[in-house]
Amino acid sequence: MKVFGDVWSGNCYKVKLVLTQLKCPFEWVPVDIMKAESHTPEFLAMNPNGRVPTVRLDDGTCLAESNAILWYFAEGTPLVPDSKLARAQALQWMFFEQYSHEPNIATSRYIIRYLGNPPEKKAALAARVEPGYAALGVMESHLAKENWFAGGKYSIADIALYAYTHCAGEGGFDLTRFPAIRAWIARVESQPFYVPMG
Amino acid sequence: MKVFGDVWSGNCYKVKLVLTQLKCPFEWVPVDIMKAESHTPEFLAMNPNGRVPTVRLDDGTCLAESNAILWYFAEGTPLVPDSKLARAQALQWMFFEQYSHEPNIATSRYIIRYLGNPPEKKAALAARVEPGYAALGVMESHLAKENWFAGGKYSIADIALYAYTHCAGEGGFDLTRFPAIRAWIARVESQPFYVPMG
Repeated sequence: MKVFGDVWSGNCYKVKLVLTQLKCPFEWVPVDIMKAESHTPEFLAMNPNGRVPTVRLDDGTCLAESNAILWYFAEGTPLVPDSKLARAQALQWMFFEQYSHEPNIATSRYIIRYLGNPPEKKAALAARVEPGYAALGVMESHLAKENWFAGGKYSIADIALYAYTHCAGEGGFDLTRFPAIRAWIARVESQPFYVPMG
Repeated sequence: MKVFGDVWSGNCYKVKLVLTQLKCPFEWVPVDIMKAESHTPEFLAMNPNGRVPTVRLDDGTCLAESNAILWYFAEGTPLVPDSKLARAQALQWMFFEQYSHEPNIATSRYIIRYLGNPPEKKAALAARVEPGYAALGVMESHLAKENWFAGGKYSIADIALYAYTHCAGEGGFDLTRFPAIRAWIARVESQPFYVPMG
């Protein structure tokens, strides 16, 4: 099974982390998104949306969208909650991550780290500050009451949110004002078989 | 069970459609997002992210994010695929919908229909044309080969994508160039217990 990804992409890191923690063997195939390697005809045949991560299973079937990939590998393991309600709550946080968190926090990091913070992106970066902090505020209010995002234990919802939260500083977001998030980051990093990004 | 929503929001319509097709009784509580009714202290106590739809179950538990709500009600019914791979593929399309489709197609419709297409939103609208058509292109390429998005039959992945695709014209998107999407829209609308938006 092959994972096509960029090691510094949080979305790709989610897949690396879950596969490592589930002890699923995989081959990592580096894709340089800055060289448009996710838009070659070969790549688009695997994922017409042209994005990493994309996974190719042993039978040739391809799967895209980081959080759907997490679900595929983790369903039936302790990393997906047992109860129907907690499963939906895990998905609630994973959709929150892709809609309210990633487009602000990950995109800011992309502008700074990948694009080198060019002047023409100043407005795009500024527009993401308020909604990015709002997303962190929603997480903080949850984590002030709960240790984990769904089902009372570490799950793929935590992996999905951890990926771009722990490196939010690279997007210009200051986590010092979010003590519950920082404590949760430490809990995630103390999980068995945790591996860092990169 | 109460659904807090706006009847002209595609995200809210998804919930109405799935509950109707599953014959789940529900009470619809109108929320006027233009009057910031999703940001009152009462609403934020249900959903700190301040968005519709939000569902309050009979025991008081609240659930947010339209596609997570679809999963909650449809899991274990024919509207969620049986196989593990097809479930992940359904989620792949649902994450695609929230990341690549809704922020372009639904947001364009919001600017035109809700905000009245004001001049100061001209650049925001223009920026969404290319990625919106790209998302429709990804759907078209899939539907040229398959009748449905996951598992070979109608599922919540179709509901999630139908919500803002069938009214994409209200966001300025021309569906005449997407024959496979138009045929799929007709198939969705011929499903048992289908109800229109509104």
